[in-house]
Amino acid sequence: MHKQFVVIGLGRFGTSVARTLSSLGHDVLAIDMKENAVQAIMNEVTHAVQADAREEENLRALGVRNFDVAVVAIGDDLQANILITLMLKEMGIEYVVAKAQTNLHGRVLEKVGADKIIYPEKDMGVRVAHNLVTANIMDFIELSPDYSIVEILTPYKFIGKSLGELNLRAKYGISVMAIKNGKKVEVAPGADARIQERDILVVVSSNKAIEKLPE
Amino acid sequence: MHKQFVVIGLGRFGTSVARTLSSLGHDVLAIDMKENAVQAIMNEVTHAVQADAREEENLRALGVRNFDVAVVAIGDDLQANILITLMLKEMGIEYVVAKAQTNLHGRVLEKVGADKIIYPEKDMGVRVAHNLVTANIMDFIELSPDYSIVEILTPYKFIGKSLGELNLRAKYGISVMAIKNGKKVEVAPGADARIQERDILVVVSSNKAIEKLPE
Ligand SMILES: Nc1ncnc2c1ncn2[C@@H]1O[C@H](COP(=O)(O)OP(=O)(O)OP(=O)(O)O)[C@@H](O)[C@H]1O
Ligand SMILES: Nc1ncnc2c1ncn2[C@@H]1O[C@H](COP(=O)(O)OP(=O)(O)OP(=O)(O)O)[C@@H](O)[C@H]1O
Ligand SMILES: [Ca+2]
Ligand SMILES: [Ca+2]
Ligand SMILES: [Ca+2]
Ligand SMILES: [Ca+2]
Repeated sequence: MHKQFVVIGLGRFGTSVARTLSSLGHDVLAIDMKENAVQAIMNEVTHAVQADAREEENLRALGVRNFDVAVVAIGDDLQANILITLMLKEMGIEYVVAKAQTNLHGRVLEKVGADKIIYPEKDMGVRVAHNLVTANIMDFIELSPDYSIVEILTPYKFIGKSLGELNLRAKYGISVMAIKNGKKVEVAPGADARIQERDILVVVSSNKAIEKLPE
Repeated sequence: MHKQFVVIGLGRFGTSVARTLSSLGHDVLAIDMKENAVQAIMNEVTHAVQADAREEENLRALGVRNFDVAVVAIGDDLQANILITLMLKEMGIEYVVAKAQTNLHGRVLEKVGADKIIYPEKDMGVRVAHNLVTANIMDFIELSPDYSIVEILTPYKFIGKSLGELNLRAKYGISVMAIKNGKKVEVAPGADARIQERDILVVVSSNKAIEKLPE
């Protein structure tokens, strides 16, 4: 199950991907053409190498073809981003993820064979906007345009009450699926579960219902 | 409930925040010093203005002080990012969100009064890494270090079977909370719900159990 990952481009996004994969116990080769980017991550990944990934010989010398997954996290240099994605697919890497700047760029990446296109800034912008509109939302999964699974900070008014007393399904149309507090999690809490300070509720709800919850 | 938002800096992240807020029905003033960034978003937000937000007079002339929430989405120019955040707080804007490049930058933003600091590239890197490790994960909410709510593509083997037949709780320790297909969503599906091609399952599961699911 332990795949080998190569991450090319150690900006903020690439560095975060490489670090996280490594912390999850996976082998990571991290490549950047800038020395300081390589230095910064050296102690946190299996290998960190300074190289220009546009040079096919460099990729060969590093044995990149033997990796299972490649992440192309170069941003501003679209030409490098596209060229490298193409080379990685031609080398036979099974799964190549590429960061795109615009939708048009994403379409080009698809054509040259990228298996997954990522728009980190755009996607995070959507998440942040949703969170801003409802200040106590911490995370969400969109189930449909108007239905979501949402993590919310417990409204002040709920503290000390049981789920039965609160009767959220009848009053707001929301169902509590889990209660988190620090490292504890209660999945599918019963009517007698009592809300405590700093509880985080994971609920299924319409987006409208969430906006109606007290602060 | 309808707050007024000002978004300063229309790179990929700022543009996405402004667009999403606007599509959720909120008033958005979008500001960038570059004309093309302003042009690109003009038809999608309440107002889009070309201005250098470091100039306090510009912010005053635009009535920025009357907004409820400001998002400072300037990236590379740390000095502008910090200065503008400071001015917005001094003008009395209640909630100022600022994009940070590094943890050190984030600490400075906190000191000058930012109410929320966002690291879009870093946070999305963490999400992408988690998704890569389990190829069929589409989105997730971490409930605890080893328990998550996860959106997965239906494993091929599940297609055509009912939840009762699959008996996922007993076999894998995962509970299906919703089934999505296109715009349809079935929340809390019963034992007779039958899995179809292209269904997306929203499940509560330990992280280990998810890794054991068939592809
Ligand atoms: N040909 C190349 N070979 C190796 N590394 C490269 C190459 N071209 C660019 N890089 C590296 O990719 C990294 C990320 O690139 P860049 O800063 O353009 O992306 P970005 O999208 O602005 O990043 P962020 O994730 O910080 O938003 C940089 O550290 C850069 O040195
Ligand atoms: N003083 C300023 N006043 C108004 N807009 C500004 C100012 N300084 C920078 N900007 C704008 O902010 C936008 C985003 O800045 P920049 O490209 O540095 O951020 P970034 O983090 O690379 O963006 P992305 O979200 O695309 O990763 C740019 O369009 C830039 O013109
Ligand atoms: Ca950059
Ligand atoms: Ca999520
Ligand atoms: Ca930029
Ligand atoms: Ca960026």
